[in-house]
Amino acid sequence: MSMTEIAPLSPAAQKVRESYDAFKAKGLKLNLTRGKPASAQLDLSQDLLSLPGASDFTAEGATDVRNYGGAQGLIEVRRLFSGILGAPPEQIVVGNNSSLALMHDTVVFSLLKGNCDSTAPWSKQDVAFLCPVPGYDRHFTICQEHGIRMIQVPLNTDGPDMDAVERLVAEDATIKGMWCVPKYSNPTGAVYSDAVIERLASMKTAAPDFRLFWDNAYVVHHLTDERVEIANVLELAAKHGHPNRPFVFSSTSKITLPGAGLAMFAASKDNVKWMLARLAPRTIGPDKVNQWRHVRFLKNEGGVLDLMDRHRALIAPKFAKVLEIFDAKLTGIPGVQWTRPKGGYFISLDVPKGSARRVVALAKEAGIELTPAGATHPYEKDPDDRTIRIAPTFPELADVALAAEGVALAVQLATA
Amino acid sequence: MSMTEIAPLSPAAQKVRESYDAFKAKGLKLNLTRGKPASAQLDLSQDLLSLPGASDFTAEGATDVRNYGGAQGLIEVRRLFSGILGAPPEQIVVGNNSSLALMHDTVVFSLLKGNCDSTAPWSKQDVAFLCPVPGYDRHFTICQEHGIRMIQVPLNTDGPDMDAVERLVAEDATIKGMWCVPKYSNPTGAVYSDAVIERLASMKTAAPDFRLFWDNAYVVHHLTDERVEIANVLELAAKHGHPNRPFVFSSTSKITLPGAGLAMFAASKDNVKWMLARLAPRTIGPDKVNQWRHVRFLKNEGGVLDLMDRHRALIAPKFAKVLEIFDAKLTGIPGVQWTRPKGGYFISLDVPKGSARRVVALAKEAGIELTPAGATHPYEKDPDDRTIRIAPTFPELADVALAAEGVALAVQLATA
Repeated sequence: MSMTEIAPLSPAAQKVRESYDAFKAKGLKLNLTRGKPASAQLDLSQDLLSLPGASDFTAEGATDVRNYGGAQGLIEVRRLFSGILGAPPEQIVVGNNSSLALMHDTVVFSLLKGNCDSTAPWSKQDVAFLCPVPGYDRHFTICQEHGIRMIQVPLNTDGPDMDAVERLVAEDATIKGMWCVPKYSNPTGAVYSDAVIERLASMKTAAPDFRLFWDNAYVVHHLTDERVEIANVLELAAKHGHPNRPFVFSSTSKITLPGAGLAMFAASKDNVKWMLARLAPRTIGPDKVNQWRHVRFLKNEGGVLDLMDRHRALIAPKFAKVLEIFDAKLTGIPGVQWTRPKGGYFISLDVPKGSARRVVALAKEAGIELTPAGATHPYEKDPDDRTIRIAPTFPELADVALAAEGVALAVQLATA
Repeated sequence: MSMTEIAPLSPAAQKVRESYDAFKAKGLKLNLTRGKPASAQLDLSQDLLSLPGASDFTAEGATDVRNYGGAQGLIEVRRLFSGILGAPPEQIVVGNNSSLALMHDTVVFSLLKGNCDSTAPWSKQDVAFLCPVPGYDRHFTICQEHGIRMIQVPLNTDGPDMDAVERLVAEDATIKGMWCVPKYSNPTGAVYSDAVIERLASMKTAAPDFRLFWDNAYVVHHLTDERVEIANVLELAAKHGHPNRPFVFSSTSKITLPGAGLAMFAASKDNVKWMLARLAPRTIGPDKVNQWRHVRFLKNEGGVLDLMDRHRALIAPKFAKVLEIFDAKLTGIPGVQWTRPKGGYFISLDVPKGSARRVVALAKEAGIELTPAGATHPYEKDPDDRTIRIAPTFPELADVALAAEGVALAVQLATA
């Protein structure tokens, strides 16, 4: 047949095409792009909008939370999150929203000044970061913005491929950092095993000022009865003689309010001292009123966990619905698989190599916005064009169901 | 007489010594160090502590202020401050607390990336800033942290010595920036004249990417009936063909709450585009709930000005008291003079050359903490050891009076 002829569709493929066209004809506008809490989740924190109240502004040590000062953050917040972060309060710094800003600034400070183990600012050298893939696009954007070379390593279900990681960091002194989302990883939901964390904490690195950028964004963001716990990277790193290796980050962005949460940094005493020295020229202190508001609202660690149970009640059904539809529609298609996360905000859908862009385009045509294929990889290039991130939290459950149907049809059509 | 002998005091000096000792014997603990609002000033914004209220979170364009997004800040805030900043809303970026952080980050972004007129990142070159003195210690700290050379220029009552400024920037391409507090300057209260501002806006600079770091911290912080207005640096710079020259900064730190205010950046369209591009990898957006809270509380520009009148009612008497005591006790002492600011947070006290440190030490001995002599100059070194910054806002009026008495006695003793 000539180049312009079109091969006739098989009856099965013809049926898929008809279903897809019928779906498209509905003219829907659905969005599964970003890991945003739904409006109903934000309502869980509505009390924050009128806290702390007009006469409630005096924290421990007669601190007037309204005035200047307190660079490290209120001791009450640091105590509240100490157990969750796995660090004593004196090793925690509380910033404004968001943890992304703390990560960015930690990279920037390292570039301009070096960290407390550096002999020179990173900007004076060639610098590379290890990037487990698939991973979080905003981590990669920080590297791209600041000319940090990104070296991909595979992310398995129990964490990064440690053989590859150990080999790379041992031989290459330009590798100064590594992005890690150790629990309910974005986007696969992978949870780093104790063995992987111990290897990360103990491995030999050619760079003495190597850092794990430990983005524990989903530390209490469970989707099942099993509250998955991971090994304490700060303790393990200290045990293995590398106390300064981990920079731990977390935030309340998906606990309270994404637009008005608290970001946290936990690390060794030397790292915290370094961080506070870098923050001192930048600010007289973070927003302590918002910290105080959070103390009043969350009360204690139990308050955080209860709140997360209420989030789970709202979003677990959305994840279940996507999985139910994928199970029904996509099971058995060669090269198609998806994750069943126990927490976090994403499902990662793998389609046959070379077809992710096509699936995203077909979904878009049918009215469903997906995160661009490639976003899960450095430079927005997925070499296998295979991974699609599904973010089911924001739309209403009925829309999630519709969108998952549409995505499934797009996958069926692309693989027909 | 031998080195160990002490010259006998004159009867007048003896009397000063006795007064000083009597003051010291009171064992007071007073503090005139930092420009902090008093507790009563913070009470003026007590409504902020329960705003916006549980069901009030939807801004223009159906923006849910609780969720992610909105890097430039709510349009409502940008409109509210447009007149005060002298820039259209689309040329304003609203950040978290504080403007110091915005200034720091603007410097950092310039170091790592260059600004929109740079051919290379500033960190690849020798970089110097012009620093009018006396000036704000935290500006100098940013330069010191990042290895930016500081070149002092004299600050007159109508602004910096423009002959010196014009000569320096015309011949030295390493001069990339200049710190300016154009209204009610910290610490002298100087107000830049229209002529000075026009010269700053129009002068030839050897560096094409030169920037005025225009810290309009006290833009509405009047202490008298005269609401001093200054020329619009953004408009003048545009008129003279240098639209990108000014980076304008301000904040609500001393309008609402220092620990929980809003910071603002205003500049040309190209600068704003550059700034937003730099902020994008750092954050998904600022704390919009706090922005919304401020919109509800301040309502409009009139609301800001009314609030500033109430601040003035609380702090103008403190300034008046200091001036009354200085007038009574220090008039006529050679080499001693002080400013009579029409706004801002400081009085600048000049003592005879070489005696500022001694005055600060004597004040400390008498129980009065003053900002260290030298803090008003780069590297904390006042070459004349002459300038002392007095910050009368934070203590109660009675304590301000006592402290001013003590400072006057310290000056009398040092000059006796």
